[in-house]
Amino acid sequence: MKIAIYQSEGKPKKIDDNLESLRRAAISAVEQGSRLLICPEMFLTGYNIGDAVFNLAEPLHGPVLQKAAAIARQTEIALLFGYPERNGADVYNSAILIDRKGEIRANYRKTHLYGSEEKRLFRPGDAFVVVELEGVNLGILICYDIEFPETVRALALAGAELIAVPTAIMEPYCLVARLVVPARAYENQIFTAYANRCGHEGDLTYCGLSCIVGPDGSDLVRCGTDAGLMVADIDRADITASREINHYLTDRRPELYKNPIMGRILGSDE
Amino acid sequence: MKIAIYQSEGKPKKIDDNLESLRRAAISAVEQGSRLLICPEMFLTGYNIGDAVFNLAEPLHGPVLQKAAAIARQTEIALLFGYPERNGADVYNSAILIDRKGEIRANYRKTHLYGSEEKRLFRPGDAFVVVELEGVNLGILICYDIEFPETVRALALAGAELIAVPTAIMEPYCLVARLVVPARAYENQIFTAYANRCGHEGDLTYCGLSCIVGPDGSDLVRCGTDAGLMVADIDRADITASREINHYLTDRRPELYKNPIMGRILGSDE
Repeated sequence: MKIAIYQSEGKPKKIDDNLESLRRAAISAVEQGSRLLICPEMFLTGYNIGDAVFNLAEPLHGPVLQKAAAIARQTEIALLFGYPERNGADVYNSAILIDRKGEIRANYRKTHLYGSEEKRLFRPGDAFVVVELEGVNLGILICYDIEFPETVRALALAGAELIAVPTAIMEPYCLVARLVVPARAYENQIFTAYANRCGHEGDLTYCGLSCIVGPDGSDLVRCGTDAGLMVADIDRADITASREINHYLTDRRPELYKNPIMGRILGSDE
Repeated sequence: MKIAIYQSEGKPKKIDDNLESLRRAAISAVEQGSRLLICPEMFLTGYNIGDAVFNLAEPLHGPVLQKAAAIARQTEIALLFGYPERNGADVYNSAILIDRKGEIRANYRKTHLYGSEEKRLFRPGDAFVVVELEGVNLGILICYDIEFPETVRALALAGAELIAVPTAIMEPYCLVARLVVPARAYENQIFTAYANRCGHEGDLTYCGLSCIVGPDGSDLVRCGTDAGLMVADIDRADITASREINHYLTDRRPELYKNPIMGRILGSDE
């Protein structure tokens, strides 16, 4: 399955402009044969918008997400993008997956909130999700989530073959895009797709460096710092080939990871 | 504390030659101010020696390790190196830590054996160790062990500040040295020191690329493919600085990592 990542600046608080940008990216992704378009964290509203998230947050079946579903249906491509989700009094930093028929297939709420500002604005999610899309098992994470090896491992053990990550990683954390995202793919022998913002937003400078990485840890595609759309093929044969060489998921020894022993350890012949 | 990594070829099955090489490396490391010298996996005997491990395996207090202890005592530097350990009928792929007084401070048995040959030759270890050396909390892993994020995480949560790794990583796995070892340092905000073999041994070509990596994921020192000794300073202030910016160890959500949910997940307002 071909998938696309859309590295983009977005327009803070301009939801209609961002929906139009989504529509154009979807058309371009389809033209390049993609079945899934992955966009950055908080794509609909902008990320660095402070208290505006409280006004702009959208319920799962609200009118803005219905417009996004119409784009998916009209352009015939699945869409994954970040948005602030309203649920009663709570707001989540969420990512929604809409299939090419316009059906909502998953809604993931960021489980690891980054820093004091996110913790002030959002309630954290409490569940991970793996969903089958066009024959590929897809896990969803958002930005900071992927920096914890536990998250990707949990999804890989649950069968995820592709981890799709709307993100908004900013300077000085560009090493996450260069180092951590490829390491997650390699150590779990899966694909990772990391769709970042670029440019500036308020006092933040985003890293760009969006990428799709294969199970051997090598970049299939890698953006620079400019906006753009890149496409790569997710081929399950690459996972199979990797897992014939290394056996990370089955060579684990979970019973040992709980209690490392401090201090002097000698052989049992002592 | 300054530490040294000794990237080396070694002489297969020539223990006396390898001890002499250890002595010379220890002298060089001390001259450069190091308090700890880290050598590769199976340093004493060679790694790719097949059934010869059964004859060359040494008990923990056997004569060869006493010679190594004498080197530590005479040159006044702590030594960590790999060797095949004999314990009754069992042979382990072990790493021994001897302090500068010649005292054995830790003996770690590789817990994740790589491939069918290691599994045929060795019994796996069943415990991790963190030991204080010259004021630094030191965790020990061997080669394949560090490729599992769970191992380093467990040691970091137990207080390890430096993960020292005798290794024998060979082509085509050089990405482990370039990508995985720095990622482990970054994601746990600790130091990693990875001392690899180089050159050829039988049908194996080792990657070299030994390194010491800081808590920000950047190389402090990095070898090429030639033999050599490199030194870097392990400064706890670098850990503190990293952990003031990011909070990986405390932002974890272990309760969520056990049961990712397959299939359709929608908001709770559904």
